[in-house]
Amino acid sequence: MTITAEIAGLVAGLRTDVARLHAELPRWGLVVWTAGNVSARVPGHDLLVIKPSGVGYDELTPEAMVVTDLGGNLVDGDRSPSSDTAAHAYVYAHLPGVGGVVHTHSTYATAWAARGEPIPCVLTMMGDEFGGEIPIGPFALIGDDSIGRGIVETLRRHRSPAVLMQNHGPFTVGRTAKDAVKAAVMCEEVARTVHIARQLGEPLPIAPADIDALYDRYQNVYGQTGVDDDE
Amino acid sequence: MTITAEIAGLVAGLRTDVARLHAELPRWGLVVWTAGNVSARVPGHDLLVIKPSGVGYDELTPEAMVVTDLGGNLVDGDRSPSSDTAAHAYVYAHLPGVGGVVHTHSTYATAWAARGEPIPCVLTMMGDEFGGEIPIGPFALIGDDSIGRGIVETLRRHRSPAVLMQNHGPFTVGRTAKDAVKAAVMCEEVARTVHIARQLGEPLPIAPADIDALYDRYQNVYGQTGVDDDE
Amino acid sequence: MTITAEIAGLVAGLRTDVARLHAELPRWGLVVWTAGNVSARVPGHDLLVIKPSGVGYDELTPEAMVVTDLGGNLVDGDRSPSSDTAAHAYVYAHLPGVGGVVHTHSTYATAWAARGEPIPCVLTMMGDEFGGEIPIGPFALIGDDSIGRGIVETLRRHRSPAVLMQNHGPFTVGRTAKDAVKAAVMCEEVARTVHIARQLGEPLPIAPADIDALYDRYQNVYGQTGVDDDE
Amino acid sequence: MTITAEIAGLVAGLRTDVARLHAELPRWGLVVWTAGNVSARVPGHDLLVIKPSGVGYDELTPEAMVVTDLGGNLVDGDRSPSSDTAAHAYVYAHLPGVGGVVHTHSTYATAWAARGEPIPCVLTMMGDEFGGEIPIGPFALIGDDSIGRGIVETLRRHRSPAVLMQNHGPFTVGRTAKDAVKAAVMCEEVARTVHIARQLGEPLPIAPADIDALYDRYQNVYGQTGVDDDE
Repeated sequence: MTITAEIAGLVAGLRTDVARLHAELPRWGLVVWTAGNVSARVPGHDLLVIKPSGVGYDELTPEAMVVTDLGGNLVDGDRSPSSDTAAHAYVYAHLPGVGGVVHTHSTYATAWAARGEPIPCVLTMMGDEFGGEIPIGPFALIGDDSIGRGIVETLRRHRSPAVLMQNHGPFTVGRTAKDAVKAAVMCEEVARTVHIARQLGEPLPIAPADIDALYDRYQNVYGQTGVDDDE
Repeated sequence: MTITAEIAGLVAGLRTDVARLHAELPRWGLVVWTAGNVSARVPGHDLLVIKPSGVGYDELTPEAMVVTDLGGNLVDGDRSPSSDTAAHAYVYAHLPGVGGVVHTHSTYATAWAARGEPIPCVLTMMGDEFGGEIPIGPFALIGDDSIGRGIVETLRRHRSPAVLMQNHGPFTVGRTAKDAVKAAVMCEEVARTVHIARQLGEPLPIAPADIDALYDRYQNVYGQTGVDDDE
Repeated sequence: MTITAEIAGLVAGLRTDVARLHAELPRWGLVVWTAGNVSARVPGHDLLVIKPSGVGYDELTPEAMVVTDLGGNLVDGDRSPSSDTAAHAYVYAHLPGVGGVVHTHSTYATAWAARGEPIPCVLTMMGDEFGGEIPIGPFALIGDDSIGRGIVETLRRHRSPAVLMQNHGPFTVGRTAKDAVKAAVMCEEVARTVHIARQLGEPLPIAPADIDALYDRYQNVYGQTGVDDDE
Repeated sequence: MTITAEIAGLVAGLRTDVARLHAELPRWGLVVWTAGNVSARVPGHDLLVIKPSGVGYDELTPEAMVVTDLGGNLVDGDRSPSSDTAAHAYVYAHLPGVGGVVHTHSTYATAWAARGEPIPCVLTMMGDEFGGEIPIGPFALIGDDSIGRGIVETLRRHRSPAVLMQNHGPFTVGRTAKDAVKAAVMCEEVARTVHIARQLGEPLPIAPADIDALYDRYQNVYGQTGVDDDE
């Protein structure tokens, strides 16, 4: 496959974004060593930009990023794509509104995943960001499309942009790669806070209507003004 | 509303203070992403300086800060004020001694808030800083004055400069914005320490008369010498 | 009191040491805001060098350090000494082998202190450094010599260079200020590790004879070669 | 013993590697103060390169590293070798495939070691890296070859490159020193994640056949392509 000049232009910006966003993962304590990866869809094309396999966070330059098609085949770049590329590609192929995907093994989210237990929505910031619980996806082995399929089927049944794959860890999605990184950061933060709340008793529930009110205001008011980050 | 030269002068210094104090929130681990905000009252005027909505901590320059009146309406600045401005403004309107307000979702304080459980005063540093328990405020949705009212009504009944809003997170106040940031840092630290103490048994109580002695010495001795920070 | 040229020379080096050692406290996560202080005895004189009250860790220059006598009275320096100076001074006055004292409210050590529960010696590194449990000192209010007396009486009954003052926090001592800082760092580390071990069951005990063997080798072998730090 | 020019050349590169790899230990939160050490085998010779005793992480230059034989005797360098050298040397003498050894007291791994409890394989990343549980080695005192022997006998019975020595802490091995450091980082991460999962219930087991599949793919696929780090 040959990359056209139009695609090359789109990819150049996304390589920079994706390389830079990887630095947010260790910054917020979501990854150790080289675990974790961020990808972005190339808008209007069946392509994605992702971290290569086996590269440390200190070496993540825009040039090191690779481009694959939605079958996970390398289209542009010098290294093999991340071994999680098939899962990212499956999500882009089946969820057209998704422009970014993040995968980590962040500690508290992975702990909920190890028990196969969804994170209940007991914080107003969870209502804002996730609109309800953060669900569990099925146990799935790497090697075919079962991880990707598990992510997509679980996300379709929830408002949450995060899914905790059983015994494995969180995958998050967003309109952009930055949105997906924000969801990964918030997913770990609520996983930690609700865990700590539960250690000494039962958190108080939030009424479903209040969760709806939080979610609607947060997604719509902010959406209308084009603001992605907020408090 | 037009800003007079006098106000412009006051605001310039406060923009610098408020911008700089926001850096203390990630420094002490109180916030992730862009959650959390600091404000300062403009002395002698019904105005406050606060973080704009949707700006990351890396971009928080003095110029980015915004000025609003105590109804939360933008008076000076290029961006929308933080979505928590109404709560800050309500506090300034109803607690005349308060010169600074801080809101975070710091992890351990928010965990107590999720259970709706006040933090008992079982540490001498809690006696010093809070003069007793850190209380819980009511569950309240954003959008009207119910958060502000819940903060004010709870703080009026306690010596503590911190209140944990149920299922939401801590708000702290101080004579200055720096004092309110210190209260936010200490609130999270005692929330964490008492949580950890409780995980393996019951902390020993401190007699009310001893709490009074700690609080009186700390507030009065330090107050007389004009020292705000200490050990 | 006038400082002689000989004392001025000793003090100059200690001001540098004590200022520099304060940076180790936030580095290893032992303090928040300005809590925590380090002091050093002026060898051969009834004097000590300590952090002033109300100075942030970013401003801790050698010149900012103050000198007091063993009654806690200011002898040299521009600021008031730390409000914990009386406790440090009492230790120097009653334990002649001590050349450095550190006080923090480090989280896990303070959590054990809140329950009034000594830390059992269940780690080989505890045998090395502490030669047994880390004991609890009495509840004591600031303002007279009761904190200092509680520290000294407790340390005299144990090999440990650390004592956890009830509901308050750890004090550590050493031959030098650096040794006392090392003891503060190790005290928090073993407080955290034993806490975590206890959360999921009972740690296995170490036989008293083995604790003696660990302590003797560590203190004597290293002592003979003049090595203070080691693994 | 005289070092030949060939050995001097090998040692020069390893000193740089070993010095640099020590910086990974505090970076990933595995050590406090000067605890923890990394060594590398000198390929084709009965020699190893290791951290000297009593040197802080800020002073770990290539020149400061020392060379010993597999009896732990100093062959080249100005300082005494780490007091853990005998354990490292025993591993190289008895496990010919090992090119690097790391020892830390990392918090969560040491907490499992204090209870004498192996870490069960309930995370896919544990299947990848450890191929099963992380086992416990015997209680052993420093001073003879009992620590080294306990490490070797335990590792021979497991696929795991990490062993938790009872009441003491983890030792990890690898084909290279970098591999052993990676194993130390991953050991602490899975120790922490499984601990947190267990705090609120029982993690779901992974079927042994699935653990085999994870381990085989990770070790073989990556091994064939020469990639050491990955996600």
